[in-house]
Amino acid sequence: MSLEDRVNALVAPKGALEILSQDEITRLSVGSGSLHDLFRRCALAILNCGSDSDDAAAVMEEFKNFEITIVQQERGVKLQLDNAPSSAFVDGKMISSVREMLFSVLRDIIFTFQEYNLERGLSSASSEKITNVVFELLRNANVFRRIRTPDMVVCWGGHSIARHEYDYTKKVGHELGLRELNICTGCGPGAMKGPMKGAAIAHAKQRITNGVYLGLTEPGIIAAESPNPIVNQLVIMPDIEKRLEAFVRTGHGIVVFPGGAGTAEEILYLLGILMHPENADIPFPLVFTGPKESAAYFEQIHAFLGDVLGEEAQAKYQIVIDDETEVARIMKEGMEEVRQYRKQHHDAFYYNWMLHIPEEFQHPFEPTHEKVRELNLHYDQEKHLLAADLRRAFSTIVAGNVKAQGVQYIKENGPFEIHGDKKLLKKLDALLEAFVKQQRMKLPGSAYVPCYKVITD
Amino acid sequence: MSLEDRVNALVAPKGALEILSQDEITRLSVGSGSLHDLFRRCALAILNCGSDSDDAAAVMEEFKNFEITIVQQERGVKLQLDNAPSSAFVDGKMISSVREMLFSVLRDIIFTFQEYNLERGLSSASSEKITNVVFELLRNANVFRRIRTPDMVVCWGGHSIARHEYDYTKKVGHELGLRELNICTGCGPGAMKGPMKGAAIAHAKQRITNGVYLGLTEPGIIAAESPNPIVNQLVIMPDIEKRLEAFVRTGHGIVVFPGGAGTAEEILYLLGILMHPENADIPFPLVFTGPKESAAYFEQIHAFLGDVLGEEAQAKYQIVIDDETEVARIMKEGMEEVRQYRKQHHDAFYYNWMLHIPEEFQHPFEPTHEKVRELNLHYDQEKHLLAADLRRAFSTIVAGNVKAQGVQYIKENGPFEIHGDKKLLKKLDALLEAFVKQQRMKLPGSAYVPCYKVITD
Amino acid sequence: MSLEDRVNALVAPKGALEILSQDEITRLSVGSGSLHDLFRRCALAILNCGSDSDDAAAVMEEFKNFEITIVQQERGVKLQLDNAPSSAFVDGKMISSVREMLFSVLRDIIFTFQEYNLERGLSSASSEKITNVVFELLRNANVFRRIRTPDMVVCWGGHSIARHEYDYTKKVGHELGLRELNICTGCGPGAMKGPMKGAAIAHAKQRITNGVYLGLTEPGIIAAESPNPIVNQLVIMPDIEKRLEAFVRTGHGIVVFPGGAGTAEEILYLLGILMHPENADIPFPLVFTGPKESAAYFEQIHAFLGDVLGEEAQAKYQIVIDDETEVARIMKEGMEEVRQYRKQHHDAFYYNWMLHIPEEFQHPFEPTHEKVRELNLHYDQEKHLLAADLRRAFSTIVAGNVKAQGVQYIKENGPFEIHGDKKLLKKLDALLEAFVKQQRMKLPGSAYVPCYKVITD
Amino acid sequence: MSLEDRVNALVAPKGALEILSQDEITRLSVGSGSLHDLFRRCALAILNCGSDSDDAAAVMEEFKNFEITIVQQERGVKLQLDNAPSSAFVDGKMISSVREMLFSVLRDIIFTFQEYNLERGLSSASSEKITNVVFELLRNANVFRRIRTPDMVVCWGGHSIARHEYDYTKKVGHELGLRELNICTGCGPGAMKGPMKGAAIAHAKQRITNGVYLGLTEPGIIAAESPNPIVNQLVIMPDIEKRLEAFVRTGHGIVVFPGGAGTAEEILYLLGILMHPENADIPFPLVFTGPKESAAYFEQIHAFLGDVLGEEAQAKYQIVIDDETEVARIMKEGMEEVRQYRKQHHDAFYYNWMLHIPEEFQHPFEPTHEKVRELNLHYDQEKHLLAADLRRAFSTIVAGNVKAQGVQYIKENGPFEIHGDKKLLKKLDALLEAFVKQQRMKLPGSAYVPCYKVITD
Repeated sequence: MSLEDRVNALVAPKGALEILSQDEITRLSVGSGSLHDLFRRCALAILNCGSDSDDAAAVMEEFKNFEITIVQQERGVKLQLDNAPSSAFVDGKMISSVREMLFSVLRDIIFTFQEYNLERGLSSASSEKITNVVFELLRNANVFRRIRTPDMVVCWGGHSIARHEYDYTKKVGHELGLRELNICTGCGPGAMKGPMKGAAIAHAKQRITNGVYLGLTEPGIIAAESPNPIVNQLVIMPDIEKRLEAFVRTGHGIVVFPGGAGTAEEILYLLGILMHPENADIPFPLVFTGPKESAAYFEQIHAFLGDVLGEEAQAKYQIVIDDETEVARIMKEGMEEVRQYRKQHHDAFYYNWMLHIPEEFQHPFEPTHEKVRELNLHYDQEKHLLAADLRRAFSTIVAGNVKAQGVQYIKENGPFEIHGDKKLLKKLDALLEAFVKQQRMKLPGSAYVPCYKVITD
Repeated sequence: MSLEDRVNALVAPKGALEILSQDEITRLSVGSGSLHDLFRRCALAILNCGSDSDDAAAVMEEFKNFEITIVQQERGVKLQLDNAPSSAFVDGKMISSVREMLFSVLRDIIFTFQEYNLERGLSSASSEKITNVVFELLRNANVFRRIRTPDMVVCWGGHSIARHEYDYTKKVGHELGLRELNICTGCGPGAMKGPMKGAAIAHAKQRITNGVYLGLTEPGIIAAESPNPIVNQLVIMPDIEKRLEAFVRTGHGIVVFPGGAGTAEEILYLLGILMHPENADIPFPLVFTGPKESAAYFEQIHAFLGDVLGEEAQAKYQIVIDDETEVARIMKEGMEEVRQYRKQHHDAFYYNWMLHIPEEFQHPFEPTHEKVRELNLHYDQEKHLLAADLRRAFSTIVAGNVKAQGVQYIKENGPFEIHGDKKLLKKLDALLEAFVKQQRMKLPGSAYVPCYKVITD
Repeated sequence: MSLEDRVNALVAPKGALEILSQDEITRLSVGSGSLHDLFRRCALAILNCGSDSDDAAAVMEEFKNFEITIVQQERGVKLQLDNAPSSAFVDGKMISSVREMLFSVLRDIIFTFQEYNLERGLSSASSEKITNVVFELLRNANVFRRIRTPDMVVCWGGHSIARHEYDYTKKVGHELGLRELNICTGCGPGAMKGPMKGAAIAHAKQRITNGVYLGLTEPGIIAAESPNPIVNQLVIMPDIEKRLEAFVRTGHGIVVFPGGAGTAEEILYLLGILMHPENADIPFPLVFTGPKESAAYFEQIHAFLGDVLGEEAQAKYQIVIDDETEVARIMKEGMEEVRQYRKQHHDAFYYNWMLHIPEEFQHPFEPTHEKVRELNLHYDQEKHLLAADLRRAFSTIVAGNVKAQGVQYIKENGPFEIHGDKKLLKKLDALLEAFVKQQRMKLPGSAYVPCYKVITD
Repeated sequence: MSLEDRVNALVAPKGALEILSQDEITRLSVGSGSLHDLFRRCALAILNCGSDSDDAAAVMEEFKNFEITIVQQERGVKLQLDNAPSSAFVDGKMISSVREMLFSVLRDIIFTFQEYNLERGLSSASSEKITNVVFELLRNANVFRRIRTPDMVVCWGGHSIARHEYDYTKKVGHELGLRELNICTGCGPGAMKGPMKGAAIAHAKQRITNGVYLGLTEPGIIAAESPNPIVNQLVIMPDIEKRLEAFVRTGHGIVVFPGGAGTAEEILYLLGILMHPENADIPFPLVFTGPKESAAYFEQIHAFLGDVLGEEAQAKYQIVIDDETEVARIMKEGMEEVRQYRKQHHDAFYYNWMLHIPEEFQHPFEPTHEKVRELNLHYDQEKHLLAADLRRAFSTIVAGNVKAQGVQYIKENGPFEIHGDKKLLKKLDALLEAFVKQQRMKLPGSAYVPCYKVITD
């Protein structure tokens, strides 16, 4: 991409928080420190939506001259962009969805990082407090709608999947959309984009003009997984644990497509919660699905979960191979169960207050070499605690693969060391190797160098 | 009103913040203390919209069995009302505008009194901070709109005016509405209702379905001046000074109708600000107007202002007698000047950031006998400082007349003592006596007993 | 009104049929004959909305230089007005409601008078055909809405009533509006305006932004009774009989306020239909109401109806004096009966197909001296036939009073002669004299000269 | 497809003409004759949207038990379907777009075939009259919008194209949609669907919720080319010539993708018009485009047009190979020229009144063996007349290939005979053979038997 591909533009918002106080403008101004840096970084990720790269550092380097400034005008604030990637523009005019997402970033950074500022963090907050904070962030982002019945299907899966897998995610999205269901994903490419695209076409057929394509991301991942432009609600959660909590509290059911370590992290997070005794009765439709070529992949996962977490974990999901209509029907029927349960217990449709999320799943896990060494990967503990530490293990691998900080740690100190039970780690390592073979750990093309080594007891 | 006139009802919101976190629900629950009391008190004022009484204590006593409870349900929260006044209902169904206002109270109490809690107050806040807070409260209440040109006319005047004066306020509102202007008032009856009613009919003629009838009130006054049901945006500001700042920063021009001490307080507040040297260039259309019978009233005010604040103050407003079209034209033309000024200085249309409000006008003045005695009512000071203390003097009288706390102080300690320059106080006393004679100080019917006495040097 | 009060303007439509074919434009052009004259005449009536005159000829004379031309432009057609009355404008800009009504006239003249052209008329059409035509005219005017329940209350009554009567019509409209009912009237001033004004304020309180204020008029009456600007749906029916049919087929209930000969005509039309044996079971809420001062008026009407049509006719309506809430409750409850009846018989909510209207009530009655002499006002006939001829007798008087053609006939040939049974005519004459005494036959101020004389057998 | 795949359902409309008069209901009732048959046939074509078959007769046979009945209910009419194809339903509920189109058929049949009934036809109508009728049909279908600038791109091309060609049409549609342009096609599959699908996704990215996907069809073609479900405005024109006129008068520019005889017919129709001297100055953006594999196809067409119509014809279009962005840019820039021309000449944006369409192109050509023999395919005549007869020749071939009537004629009388100049017919035959080789004349799979033979002088 040459320098000619840079665009300077002054863009006005569409929608809500174009109206900033002078305090807020000052806080985000160039030269104001870490908040401005964060804003600039997330904005760049949004603008770089046309790129296939998931190498955050490379993107930052490529656009080091990019700058973004808030300008006060008589009808609200605007954003002045300098040296922005041209892929966000058509004939020099910014694509509306990009513009919208740019202002979503502004909104979330102001609200999230001002109200619950990162420095003091929420590290000492109680479980209840964190759940309330996640609620407030989503409410501020206007995610909550008045709905007649639960309808939000979360789709998880890899950002870098094969073409036939991608096509299958579109088909599933299409069938979900025909049934008037909405889609929530992590908002990048691959399995995060396909279901939205399929649903968008289906919603057009059903004349639904207010279909929701909700993207939940966080500052550490946004640069590597630029939101796809179908996303029409974007929320930047403060960290990965808040993002995961947002998924399971706003989603009414979850479909898991093939993916790599990130998807495995999500599966373990969810199963760990669903296996908690307090959640035994809560209906939560969960389907693992892929085209027929992916059957083997799900067998591996299924076997691994059976081995480490037992049949009890396996009972929490269904595996459906190559049948998009069946997936959509299971979800649609599941919505009805969720509806009845919530009504009966006077729980909100828009936020699953009743789901108990143990603190282990709420506090941020920052994968330093030291913290990774402390993970407790043994069979002899409560299943949901083992699930929590397995989740952290996968989180570590995601960080080492794509997150700027994680990649930096690896550069400085070599691969992470994951300690644990021999049999368990062998299973884990086999699964990860299979991911590598199937090119699920990085974008196809670049050879994969593992960011971890397994050290058994 | 008999006990049969009480209604029990479960009401759902129309609109935004029906979605509360569990924290918020807990904080406002029955038995949770002062916040619930405040909520209950304001809610009752809203529900009592059919009453003509401005005796807050009597209303509270009459409806002492009234209770309000927040109920969580699957589609958001609802409000359970017990023993509510029947005037808010038609055939047992709550009038929509009342319902809307009830949830506005909920929204403002949660936001205002949680974010900027009353205990810590904003007593030590800087002028800039207070201005930002007023901004944030209004933004949270969705008061800010994207407009093509300034259009908000604030109407001030008495809540208890004569029929012919009331009819005139309707005519002025009608002419303003025909010119596509919107109305903001203190949201009670009288001069606060007439302009809205006239504008509503005019907006219907102009097929304007998004006309704005903005009511700004505060907890101390809401019980005595129930919002009229035309109001379609209601904001409960935390105290009278924030409310006054909200008027002058969101309004683009002001029309003053005949009124009593409250209206005088508003006039002095505004002139004090406009006379500040930093505001010399800021256009601010200001008209005093009434039917021909009110000509003498405005002559008295005009003379008083000339005497205490000088010709400079008189230059800030025009007096128009019995010509509603002229008033509307002046406002319409004034809007254009405001538009050009804001555009030129890149100031927002929706909030007058450039207007300098000295700290004397921002911090709450609580009229205790001690504070009132400290007022400095002498000529030998800067005009805007004298205006500030005169404003406080009128505020004192309003409190002594209609506010629960003020009435209580008088009961305990006798009338307030206002000290000052002999000539000045004589003028003041004459003006106040004229108000009494014209029955502008209290609802007609009950004899007026002054809540103050003048003590000259 | 001086020549300075004339305005030239080019106005664009708000809404539907701004899109004309070249055929249509040609047909309505200046110089194209009777259709253009009709258009010009109706347009002038709309524009003259600020006038209180009901003297059509005088208005035509006053604005003889007025002209209206259709102009084709790239975004649809516009209307060029020359020497238009200034009362339709605010600061040189046309009031939106007037603009809307102007284009309603255009729409109806093109559709009505082109599809069912006046020359061939519908004189030989069957009853079914006429009913279908009335339906098509209303459908083309977008009068039919999808509604959950019947809600349209027709209000009949004089255009020139006393102030206290007018205030009462506003109160009734307010109570109807609070109950979410809509209003349909003949769209002039007086009892045709008051209920709409009251309902408009009530709808604002109920946050109803799609309230309907339907005005039904016809070319012969529009000049004398300019549509009031609250009307937001205006339909020009081709003649008085189609207009009356439109009232009873789109309205779900009717409230009759005090009025003169026109109101009596409407009452007799309706009773004649409701008394037809085929309509015996059809629910049709009907209330005669006025302030307490009007009690005597309704006693006279009631006695007259009892005398000429019998108790059976009296059983079709209720008389409510000075109780607007009771009127509104009767209508609201009546709506429910109508709803159940229509549902049960699969009849449309928006058009009363089941109501049988005998041909006698459908064909135009043009009151020439000859036709009037032929009226059969005797007791010895079926009641609904007597009602039909009584209706024509009152129609004759309306024409002689305010319609251009009727006034012309009188000028040329002297008063109309109404023949009939002695006793019956005595009752009729007494009623008409009472109307005169109460100044119900013409605008107060001008002395009334009867346009008819009674000739008994 | 088994009998289990039939669905019975009662469907309510979304939108406008759900409100029918009793006359209209009677006219379309089962047993009422040809109008009901037409309605049933078109309705079946809509419902059969999931099918890939373009064999109308086979579809009619397969669903011979299908029936459709109009049912009057209190909130308007509904449609009772019996034995309808299940592809129009998801889990037993009709897809909204199908439902919408079903009622479009109802609307158009009532209006078109009642107002301008087929029997009397418009055979003797003047050119002006036909142009006004086309206008009225489109207006009645609410096709005309108020737009700020021309934006409607007509896409022509085959309904049965190769996968890579289809993918290319999607890309072009996407680029058009990103530039906020709308799409009009013949509303079947292939090149009529791809651009709409691409534009739908692009409109989602641009947050355009009122994107227009206009489908123009006619009773003879609808069964073979079921409207695709992206179409959100469907109009059934009475015959192919009115449909072609609708394309060129509502479209602001045209993109031609590869296709067969139908596409060639469209090209010749358009060039014949554009070459008329009266249209010399009218801007009409026209691009022929396809993926790089289609380059040869357009070379053939280009050569043929150059040969038979000359360079003058070739100057009317541009050929763009494999560059969707370039196509979109040409159209976008062309829109601006159209805008300026219309503004300058006060012609409507929504209907190209100024374009002269000679009568030869307006009257229906029914390809009987006799009429086909009369075609005059010689060089020695005005170019636009030759184009007119060439258009008819291609129309003949389309009829012989896919239209029920044409197929019947062939069955009875053998292939059509096309007479003409030897050299010209040789060129024509070569072109048609190329179409056959490229499988552009019928759905791939079934061998093509030509429905015509060429007979040279």
